[in-house]
Amino acid sequence: MSGNTLGKNLTVTIFGESHGPAVGAVIDGLPSGLKIDMDFLLDQMKKRKASGKISTARQEADLPEFVSGLKDGYTEGTPLTLIIRNENVRRDDYAATMNKPRPSHADYSGHIRYGGFEDASGGGHFSARLTAPLTAAGAIAMQMLKEKGILIGTHIRKLHHIEERPFSEEHLKEDIELVNSRLFAVLEAASEEKMKALIEEAAAKKDSVGGILETAVYGLEAGIGEPMFDTLEGVLAKALFAVPAVKGVQFGSGFAFADMYGSQANDPFAVKDGAVQTLSNHNGGINGGISNGMPIRFETVIKPTPSIGRKQATVDLETMTNTEIEIRGRHDPAVIHRARAVIDAVTALAVADLLMEKYGRAGFEEGHI
Amino acid sequence: MSGNTLGKNLTVTIFGESHGPAVGAVIDGLPSGLKIDMDFLLDQMKKRKASGKISTARQEADLPEFVSGLKDGYTEGTPLTLIIRNENVRRDDYAATMNKPRPSHADYSGHIRYGGFEDASGGGHFSARLTAPLTAAGAIAMQMLKEKGILIGTHIRKLHHIEERPFSEEHLKEDIELVNSRLFAVLEAASEEKMKALIEEAAAKKDSVGGILETAVYGLEAGIGEPMFDTLEGVLAKALFAVPAVKGVQFGSGFAFADMYGSQANDPFAVKDGAVQTLSNHNGGINGGISNGMPIRFETVIKPTPSIGRKQATVDLETMTNTEIEIRGRHDPAVIHRARAVIDAVTALAVADLLMEKYGRAGFEEGHI
Amino acid sequence: MSGNTLGKNLTVTIFGESHGPAVGAVIDGLPSGLKIDMDFLLDQMKKRKASGKISTARQEADLPEFVSGLKDGYTEGTPLTLIIRNENVRRDDYAATMNKPRPSHADYSGHIRYGGFEDASGGGHFSARLTAPLTAAGAIAMQMLKEKGILIGTHIRKLHHIEERPFSEEHLKEDIELVNSRLFAVLEAASEEKMKALIEEAAAKKDSVGGILETAVYGLEAGIGEPMFDTLEGVLAKALFAVPAVKGVQFGSGFAFADMYGSQANDPFAVKDGAVQTLSNHNGGINGGISNGMPIRFETVIKPTPSIGRKQATVDLETMTNTEIEIRGRHDPAVIHRARAVIDAVTALAVADLLMEKYGRAGFEEGHI
Amino acid sequence: MSGNTLGKNLTVTIFGESHGPAVGAVIDGLPSGLKIDMDFLLDQMKKRKASGKISTARQEADLPEFVSGLKDGYTEGTPLTLIIRNENVRRDDYAATMNKPRPSHADYSGHIRYGGFEDASGGGHFSARLTAPLTAAGAIAMQMLKEKGILIGTHIRKLHHIEERPFSEEHLKEDIELVNSRLFAVLEAASEEKMKALIEEAAAKKDSVGGILETAVYGLEAGIGEPMFDTLEGVLAKALFAVPAVKGVQFGSGFAFADMYGSQANDPFAVKDGAVQTLSNHNGGINGGISNGMPIRFETVIKPTPSIGRKQATVDLETMTNTEIEIRGRHDPAVIHRARAVIDAVTALAVADLLMEKYGRAGFEEGHI
Repeated sequence: MSGNTLGKNLTVTIFGESHGPAVGAVIDGLPSGLKIDMDFLLDQMKKRKASGKISTARQEADLPEFVSGLKDGYTEGTPLTLIIRNENVRRDDYAATMNKPRPSHADYSGHIRYGGFEDASGGGHFSARLTAPLTAAGAIAMQMLKEKGILIGTHIRKLHHIEERPFSEEHLKEDIELVNSRLFAVLEAASEEKMKALIEEAAAKKDSVGGILETAVYGLEAGIGEPMFDTLEGVLAKALFAVPAVKGVQFGSGFAFADMYGSQANDPFAVKDGAVQTLSNHNGGINGGISNGMPIRFETVIKPTPSIGRKQATVDLETMTNTEIEIRGRHDPAVIHRARAVIDAVTALAVADLLMEKYGRAGFEEGHI
Repeated sequence: MSGNTLGKNLTVTIFGESHGPAVGAVIDGLPSGLKIDMDFLLDQMKKRKASGKISTARQEADLPEFVSGLKDGYTEGTPLTLIIRNENVRRDDYAATMNKPRPSHADYSGHIRYGGFEDASGGGHFSARLTAPLTAAGAIAMQMLKEKGILIGTHIRKLHHIEERPFSEEHLKEDIELVNSRLFAVLEAASEEKMKALIEEAAAKKDSVGGILETAVYGLEAGIGEPMFDTLEGVLAKALFAVPAVKGVQFGSGFAFADMYGSQANDPFAVKDGAVQTLSNHNGGINGGISNGMPIRFETVIKPTPSIGRKQATVDLETMTNTEIEIRGRHDPAVIHRARAVIDAVTALAVADLLMEKYGRAGFEEGHI
Repeated sequence: MSGNTLGKNLTVTIFGESHGPAVGAVIDGLPSGLKIDMDFLLDQMKKRKASGKISTARQEADLPEFVSGLKDGYTEGTPLTLIIRNENVRRDDYAATMNKPRPSHADYSGHIRYGGFEDASGGGHFSARLTAPLTAAGAIAMQMLKEKGILIGTHIRKLHHIEERPFSEEHLKEDIELVNSRLFAVLEAASEEKMKALIEEAAAKKDSVGGILETAVYGLEAGIGEPMFDTLEGVLAKALFAVPAVKGVQFGSGFAFADMYGSQANDPFAVKDGAVQTLSNHNGGINGGISNGMPIRFETVIKPTPSIGRKQATVDLETMTNTEIEIRGRHDPAVIHRARAVIDAVTALAVADLLMEKYGRAGFEEGHI
Repeated sequence: MSGNTLGKNLTVTIFGESHGPAVGAVIDGLPSGLKIDMDFLLDQMKKRKASGKISTARQEADLPEFVSGLKDGYTEGTPLTLIIRNENVRRDDYAATMNKPRPSHADYSGHIRYGGFEDASGGGHFSARLTAPLTAAGAIAMQMLKEKGILIGTHIRKLHHIEERPFSEEHLKEDIELVNSRLFAVLEAASEEKMKALIEEAAAKKDSVGGILETAVYGLEAGIGEPMFDTLEGVLAKALFAVPAVKGVQFGSGFAFADMYGSQANDPFAVKDGAVQTLSNHNGGINGGISNGMPIRFETVIKPTPSIGRKQATVDLETMTNTEIEIRGRHDPAVIHRARAVIDAVTALAVADLLMEKYGRAGFEEGHI
């Protein structure tokens, strides 16, 4: 399988370029008979979409067309394909800068990878627009998991210097439901205002900001994960790094483990309500790459959007000389509030894939016939 | 492929249990005609091995036997299999604690995953001992890369509160060669003494410590990586999380990106020595999941070894009651100085795999016949 | 990867249902900078299409829309997606027979596999219509191979009792070019008339016929194939059995080997024109699963189309009683003359995939930048 | 995954060379808690082994050592590795003919594939000896299937001109049990004598013979297979072509379909004993690549062993001139009676793999804890 397919049992293949005819996804390995909750799917896509002053001016309907695998609202079990047309394509915005790679974008590395035949307009295959079909695919996986009592949620733990509290350990389910009810992914109402103000401020300075997203998976049974290599952490991490701008992933206490003694870091076991639990969750619900029944918890760092309006140093690839670039066109001063929906999507896809390793597709199809 | 195989073009399958007959690896997809540098391979294994007061008392020869794929010192191109016998097996040490999962170990999650049929002695399939064949496999990949001018090195950036300087940007090659010449992976001679003292101190307190490893890949050409999912970051991360105790991975500035503005985080391009380079390397040599020709840089966090001599709370899985555990047997107060060799190994395997995606095996076999 | 994706290096994912919105393909792993020969691609699709009296009355334009991966006629190296709309959909034809599986069709086995959620109209995901995007994908692979001097051709070796001569050993290239120049895949002009008459005769009797296709691959270098399991034979066979109605595959002398002594079956080696060749080709150009430099030769059997107009015994799946069925709607009295284009397609995909194992994508991209 | 690994859910990696230290297999994805029936496993290996006058003189104990994944006779769920030492290695037999490829062997194609670094002695990685660990792995899969009521059997339908009756449709289970109780795979007692006489006669003439094996899978439920590409036929065929000397595979009526009308070839459905069945089984239990609940039936052709004692024309690869070869050393005048065990093995592996696609590993682990 080549690089645009994720997963082993439940596979998602993503295709498209930002300014080509369409972007889309093929999802294979789906159980048949799953009634797609279209409202939920569109809601997830809405969370990912540009909106308000704080995001790019490009506004498209982004309604996916389902061209295969769906009949009367139910999955057929055959590949489900969805396509999102690119309606608002303006190649001209990019013509001038074609040979001047934007700093910290994929323009240059992609140019080398694809030999100059790539469609660089609007980021091409690297555009965040590719995350639209990925989010739709993830919404279907989220629905599969919800039927097993598994919830996924992500909030902005930190936007530049503005932090909010982490997910509660005791009321995690409620916290996930809270953040999932909001378009702007925060737990504390005050965070939204402050963060939006900061994003606008960055935009006004022709600059951009990043931050840290915290994600939790609630309700995943113990015993999921396939060491030595298809660990829960490894499979999640590979999927998470497909989300544009993600540059780091940490599980549980993550990099803070470096400052702890083993006696502080270990999570003691205890019997609670007749089940084995841990008294702390520094390990983010994962031991030895396998879920231990506690909530899965991890953080991803989203770098500041590389597209900024300021003049930047770059090179002219044709003449191989130094030059400058001022990026025009549409771009976001932050993507972190949109990335949350994509993080949820890939998390769901990774978890569903590993669950299918244990239960097969029949485990998601019971009572069909 | 199931969870114990890593890679697509160059695959490594790891097998074995700590107290079973043997551990080992099968490497498939190797170019034929590669003369294995056995001294180098054994040297990498030595770096991974327990040594001195600061590590476990278990001392084994760990000499791999090559049972297939190697003739007169050259790879045949058929699966190369190496086996390391477990000579010093003491199942009794573990008998008493069989049903008492050690906190933050894989005992419990593994018990659920493998249904009670796992060989829990000494960590079984989760033992760090499994990293011995992985290190040997990685040494072969490192050698393949070295012939392409690619060097990999890892040092202890931080052990608990003791830090040392990061890899130099200007003299990276020298730094890698320096750390690779040392059994204890530090750049500054003073670090070794301080860190070893801290490890012994932790051991004396029946405790353990963790830290942060910094890794660099020098000499990788631009254009390597297969977005959207088989990104250089994603493929590396998946491999890195197979290393026991790794709980986080960050590329370039990693989590520090959260505190930066885009104008600070971006890496401007410039022509230097006739080639495109970046003036800073916040992105760790990767844009859009593809190498940009700058050194690849990332950090992994190694949690404190969960095996500590102190009394800890746990459960009795048979009676489902709370109890306590005091771990006896052999264990390390730190594994970070050993993990460096495993990190190098999986890094090499991941990079070689992606390079073969571009060049095929013929790209590593030129001039054979 | 799930069942609708073929290949490892060059992957093709096929989606769609006969009477759904569209069928299509995503091709990943393509080299960038390949100028698609659209005339050739459409020509291959034309060969696959229904035509004349001897085929189904369903006539659609079948023009693929390229929605990603193609810019100015060149592959971008990103996933190439093509979609073919289903324009002439008549669900009503099938409504009456919904619960009565057609003998020797996939109706019943598919019903069990997909739990009753499948779109059974017109064969749904099992329709020969799915071979349209597969043929288009294969045409691109054929073009990649042609640039390496590799030609593929297939002719009707036998239609029911009408046989024609096999491919010539001496003039194989000319024979391939000859058959590829014809819409009806025969070497001898007289065969076409006789075979078409037989097909019409079968149609008149509300019956159908099958036959044997012979395929040759000319110009494939020695050394291609990845034993023990990804043999040239195994990889080809897996791809060939994806073609509807294929029930057997034989390489070289195939089942006739059973009647030979080793002394008759062996292909002696000889030096010819400075190269190693074999004096006979009973092995169809493959020894030990690896090409030996001689032409690859194999035959596939195409069973008679199961859709026949006669009354047939079947069951009513709702009442679980015996009943009868008379298939109306559109169907072919033979598919063998259309299957040839699909056989060529999957052959090209399989061979290109194995060639990329050796050469990587760079081997197909030389001289790009 | 590279070419020496078979399967997706249940994977088998085969390694080793005929005259290297050992051959072996790693099986990953096994359910935990399967009690290996060692008598059955050894019995399957015995069926594969050389025996009596009619086979090669090489006699080895071939007892597999289980070096991982097995504890107290039960699978642990971790990779199960078995190794078979090569005890009776005689490299000298082959030294003289090193550069003279044996006609119809893999010597030449393998030489090109592996660049001259292959271990050609005794066939090296192409030796039928590699089928010993494959047979052991398959025995484990056969056992998994047996617990689901699925039986597999193979008999010699035809040895050169000597045929015996096909498997009975009505008493298939009994026929499978009958042939599985015999070391020489025939249904009719008289066949054994006649066939053995023919093999000895061929040996006396320094020649060899081949034939056709018929295989049946009894008890496989309907709905197994993953079209469009991972069809039951395609997955089986790929596995079958890994068996040395197999040059063709046909399902059900196979190539005889070419002579039938659709009205003769179709298998009408009927309700029998409350279940859907077909009144004939021309399709060998498979429609649209998916099992239909009827027995799976297929035939494979085994070419005459290429190793014959007669003088044959070949080339000297060093001088690139024509020459002759007389093969000495150990070789079989027929392998078909040994191949039956390998055919059973790969059939079991393929079917178990597809069953796990539906049921996951949990489907084979029920009632564990």
